Amino acid sequence: MSEPAPSRVLVVDLNSSARVWALPPSAAARLREATPPDWEVRVVDAPTVSDGDGGRAPSGEALAAVRDAEVYFGFGLHPALLAGAPRLRWVQSAAAGVRSLLSPELLAREIVLTNAAGVMAIPMAEYVLAGVLHFLRGFDVALAQQRAGTWDRAPWVEPAAPPGGFSGPREIGECRALIVGVRGIGAAVAERLTALGATCVGVRRRPAAEAPPGFAAVIGQDGLDAELARADLVILAAPSTPETERLLDARRLGLLRPSAIVVNVGRGALVDEGALVDALAAGRLRGAVLDVMDVEPLPGDSPLWRLPNVLLTPHVSATSAAGFWPRMLDVFLDNWTRWRRGTPLRNVVDPAAGY
Amino acid sequence: MSEPAPSRVLVVDLNSSARVWALPPSAAARLREATPPDWEVRVVDAPTVSDGDGGRAPSGEALAAVRDAEVYFGFGLHPALLAGAPRLRWVQSAAAGVRSLLSPELLAREIVLTNAAGVMAIPMAEYVLAGVLHFLRGFDVALAQQRAGTWDRAPWVEPAAPPGGFSGPREIGECRALIVGVRGIGAAVAERLTALGATCVGVRRRPAAEAPPGFAAVIGQDGLDAELARADLVILAAPSTPETERLLDARRLGLLRPSAIVVNVGRGALVDEGALVDALAAGRLRGAVLDVMDVEPLPGDSPLWRLPNVLLTPHVSATSAAGFWPRMLDVFLDNWTRWRRGTPLRNVVDPAAGY
Repeated sequence: MSEPAPSRVLVVDLNSSARVWALPPSAAARLREATPPDWEVRVVDAPTVSDGDGGRAPSGEALAAVRDAEVYFGFGLHPALLAGAPRLRWVQSAAAGVRSLLSPELLAREIVLTNAAGVMAIPMAEYVLAGVLHFLRGFDVALAQQRAGTWDRAPWVEPAAPPGGFSGPREIGECRALIVGVRGIGAAVAERLTALGATCVGVRRRPAAEAPPGFAAVIGQDGLDAELARADLVILAAPSTPETERLLDARRLGLLRPSAIVVNVGRGALVDEGALVDALAAGRLRGAVLDVMDVEPLPGDSPLWRLPNVLLTPHVSATSAAGFWPRMLDVFLDNWTRWRRGTPLRNVVDPAAGY
Repeated sequence: MSEPAPSRVLVVDLNSSARVWALPPSAAARLREATPPDWEVRVVDAPTVSDGDGGRAPSGEALAAVRDAEVYFGFGLHPALLAGAPRLRWVQSAAAGVRSLLSPELLAREIVLTNAAGVMAIPMAEYVLAGVLHFLRGFDVALAQQRAGTWDRAPWVEPAAPPGGFSGPREIGECRALIVGVRGIGAAVAERLTALGATCVGVRRRPAAEAPPGFAAVIGQDGLDAELARADLVILAAPSTPETERLLDARRLGLLRPSAIVVNVGRGALVDEGALVDALAAGRLRGAVLDVMDVEPLPGDSPLWRLPNVLLTPHVSATSAAGFWPRMLDVFLDNWTRWRRGTPLRNVVDPAAGY
């Protein structure tokens, strides 16, 4: 008796040119072991690009592989791959942001799109915690003293800073945190800050739903202005959608206290970057922790580089050398089983919402 | 009817020249409200010194106040105050470290000594968390890039650092933390790190006792070498005693992995500072977070100022602008009630142990 020839095709296009994002051999082996006899798994060897919302140019190998593919597992989906894969029905992206994928061409076809929501939540939440503590404990002041070879306890024990300056250490338990985005990343941030004593208020489109664990309350955008005026920490952990674009504009930045700390791990588009620079330069904010910007890489002439109350990182908050692939494979393999059984997938993107 | 004249005297000598440590009017009012009719509370207005283990020179006002005092509430106890207070029976220090107080003169008299153990635990634990995350997330590398105006994701996504360098972000959940000191501060550190996924091993003199909450295990110094070789984080949160002095010497530093992070919020004496400098300069450690040093203020010619894998702060990890006095008063008022009832006090210092 011979096995039936595999008739269903999964294309795995995850050989990122950034090593930490590239599918490691152990994960590829785990995929092959989980492959049923009626499926063929095509692991594309050619490098792809994992930056941002998806790949920039598909490889010839990927283009050839998707021709009769039913499922594509990659970093987003390049339009050329979509056009060249007439039998495609499910795309699992290993990225969290999917806005650039939601083309009219994709929406016109009956293709299920799932993303990596939640997979990067832990490293991103730890990044947020690290950034918040950097300014709460005055590490910016300590590092400036260290570079100058200065030992001066006054900023900690005789706090007398102008508004926006370091006015002595604050504890997480004293903080009210406003978290924009209450799913994967926002939830992981809230869980940690709440465990450390903060009061967390979430912002989302549908505030009527029950507050998820870690949140004291969840509000809609209509309650945002009032909460901004009370917030010690403002954490942007939302995707870029028409509704979140420039959510933190000049007017809303003006509502914040001078002691407030802003963290952005979502997308640069959520903030009016020019207005943020103005507020920081004028001492109208305690500090900003920015992993994402309007233009990346950040242009050399951006004032953000030189503001002492800014902590910049080059869009790396999600990186986790050891943590990413085990979690990503957990999501994909569970989804693949659900797909074969015909049950609903996890992390399905709502094209109308944009995430 | 006339009230009986107060016959028992409490001296409060807490007007620290460092504003954040000075007894605020609200706390003084709380003390007066809690004063029973047979007690007189003398609040010394003259400034005192709260640095380190205790005051350096008592004020004339304090010297006059303690002459017939039963209880002294100050930052440590200067030998001149001890000599001038023949009726003194209890000293509550608002500092955690008491080593310099344990003079033969004090030990020869039946004076109960209680300290501020636990009162500074929360800010110090948040400092430790901030310091650990600084190096785990590669903020040292990010800040160097920011100062240079460089955008380079390679250290995060293509980690290829030499030993001791930044080899990509690590999560707290991947870390095994060795915490020297399992009481107030160490316990608060362990509680937080464990909640964030780390495995915490405590080190104390009597390892046979049950492991406190937050610790997966507690060992004695005989198990220290083996645990140092497995540790990702080494956190020194112990007092300076003959047993902890130079606990981390050159040999033990040599047992650590090059990816290890050392945090010292105890006392400089716990580490061989020269050996630590050598290890850091040679890339045999990922980083060190130091709030305490052998000599404070740190001398201008110390190499610690200029090592890029060091985060220095000027002995301020315990500072908390809003948190200290409410907690310190909670401890003192509870202890004062116990004292009047004749029941055992909290935070009693064991002179033999030195803390």
